[in-house]
Amino acid sequence: MRVVAALGGNALLQRGQALSAANQRRNVRAAARSLAPVAQDHELVISHGNGPQVGLLALQGSAYTEVEPYPLDILDAETEGMIGYVLQQELGNELPFQTPVVTLLTQIEVDPDDPAFKDPSKPIGPLYTAERARQLAGEKGWTFKADGQSMRRVVASPLPRRIYGLKPVEWMLDHGAVVVCAGGGGIPVAHVDEPVPAGRRLVGVEAVIDKDRASALLAAEIGAEMLAIITDVDAVYLDWGTPQQRAIRRTGPDALGAQAFAAGSMGPKVAAAREFVQRTGGHAVIGSIADAARLVSGQAGTLVSAQAGEPEMASGGSG
Amino acid sequence: MRVVAALGGNALLQRGQALSAANQRRNVRAAARSLAPVAQDHELVISHGNGPQVGLLALQGSAYTEVEPYPLDILDAETEGMIGYVLQQELGNELPFQTPVVTLLTQIEVDPDDPAFKDPSKPIGPLYTAERARQLAGEKGWTFKADGQSMRRVVASPLPRRIYGLKPVEWMLDHGAVVVCAGGGGIPVAHVDEPVPAGRRLVGVEAVIDKDRASALLAAEIGAEMLAIITDVDAVYLDWGTPQQRAIRRTGPDALGAQAFAAGSMGPKVAAAREFVQRTGGHAVIGSIADAARLVSGQAGTLVSAQAGEPEMASGGSG
Repeated sequence: MRVVAALGGNALLQRGQALSAANQRRNVRAAARSLAPVAQDHELVISHGNGPQVGLLALQGSAYTEVEPYPLDILDAETEGMIGYVLQQELGNELPFQTPVVTLLTQIEVDPDDPAFKDPSKPIGPLYTAERARQLAGEKGWTFKADGQSMRRVVASPLPRRIYGLKPVEWMLDHGAVVVCAGGGGIPVAHVDEPVPAGRRLVGVEAVIDKDRASALLAAEIGAEMLAIITDVDAVYLDWGTPQQRAIRRTGPDALGAQAFAAGSMGPKVAAAREFVQRTGGHAVIGSIADAARLVSGQAGTLVSAQAGEPEMASGGSG
Repeated sequence: MRVVAALGGNALLQRGQALSAANQRRNVRAAARSLAPVAQDHELVISHGNGPQVGLLALQGSAYTEVEPYPLDILDAETEGMIGYVLQQELGNELPFQTPVVTLLTQIEVDPDDPAFKDPSKPIGPLYTAERARQLAGEKGWTFKADGQSMRRVVASPLPRRIYGLKPVEWMLDHGAVVVCAGGGGIPVAHVDEPVPAGRRLVGVEAVIDKDRASALLAAEIGAEMLAIITDVDAVYLDWGTPQQRAIRRTGPDALGAQAFAAGSMGPKVAAAREFVQRTGGHAVIGSIADAARLVSGQAGTLVSAQAGEPEMASGGSG
């Protein structure tokens, strides 16, 4: 089976953990151990988030004031290098020596007129106190929104329209490689018409694409049978955070769409899972990195399937 | 013909230019224009330096003090993302739409006992005054050496021993793709034996591998017929910087080895060219990015060839 596994930022860096290289490597190593059996049984493409990391790079860059801060497309590309390398190395350590693991940089086209540019919503970087957020907003012109009790920087998150470099991903899979690509939702680009020399060019765009939406598009475009959206909770819950919370075991995409989920966290994952299933008739699953192999075999997480209808709840429940 | 083009840091960022994203993009765009005809006539693999960029990232990281500075292997990987993306995008803009341009992250094994770890020699980052260098050396424990009238940070630059991920590079070439890889000399890694779980693992190493030596090894391992070492001067000169300076047009590797060149700049390029020619019997050429296509066709630069003997000088001379 061809599987796209979208690793959430929270699967790579636990909430509240410092953004250190050591913490990231420890989490990536654990993720690689969980994903290795999937790579051995299936064609595996891994995408990943970059919210904490791209925010860190933006913060570092703005601390060094001798050059203009680097634009987000370049910082996105840097995070594809940073996270892709550690994933590639740790996965390589878990897999038989002859299994190639490759990381490809991925450009993804967005619409420069996407309404997201007028309403930044994607949280990046660390959590701040309200006071520090006000200070940074003043200094750097950044936008902040509440994240729990804290504040977090938000940037534009346009929809992915077209992924470049899909054929190389498929060529690598055909050769038996595990592919890391579309990291951080891909590097956002757009076409512009330039007068000299006349013609259309791709240019970078200041944004961070939602990695779940990008992964859903990627999975559909390369003909994946399954999209696994991997995070730090074991399933999608109804009435999350209340005494009545119940894990959904299996659901159809329409029935899932009738429920409301948090815009910043489970919302985009549910939207991406529904989009993939509705477009392709394949399966999507949402669950925890610790269960990676069981997610893919349908034994854990919330399975979204065109053949299912109303949400069926998990019996018992580990949440 | 299969060609590896190694782009020097000075071909991507002119000496003394600020390390801004805009300056880098302008230079990369010019480099892409020069390389496009080579990509259309040959199988092309592009590697690149990262000295200024990895130094910038180290500087930025150390300015943000809430986490430990990131190790050089991760910063090297970030520069493969940063530079690879812009190269990939700008080359894509110059080439026919159907030509795939891919960037692969590349791990390169080094020997942890390489003497380079005891004698840091690779200059990274910007130029400093002697006073600022002393200050940074005290604050961060960095090592500095003179670079012309200024000071520059130096880090360990061990020899590349083994390149991982060569097969994926060849698969992409077989599919007609232009490949960007081994950026910044590759990401330095080494094997360690770990007790739990028992076995050998690859881990990152704090270093910056010389990109010319890495490119020579890459070119030999993938069976390239030509290694083009591309910089900001149009040839290798004898008596460089004196009124008697003369550009070498063509030379054998042994005769070239009898000459002395600057350790920080032309020295490693000459060493890499000789190594490639002696090992493979292929051709190496050293020259300017502006002449890229003419370098590869043997009409410009300094050609190092097993069939040549004593250095033949260029008639006239553009230097």
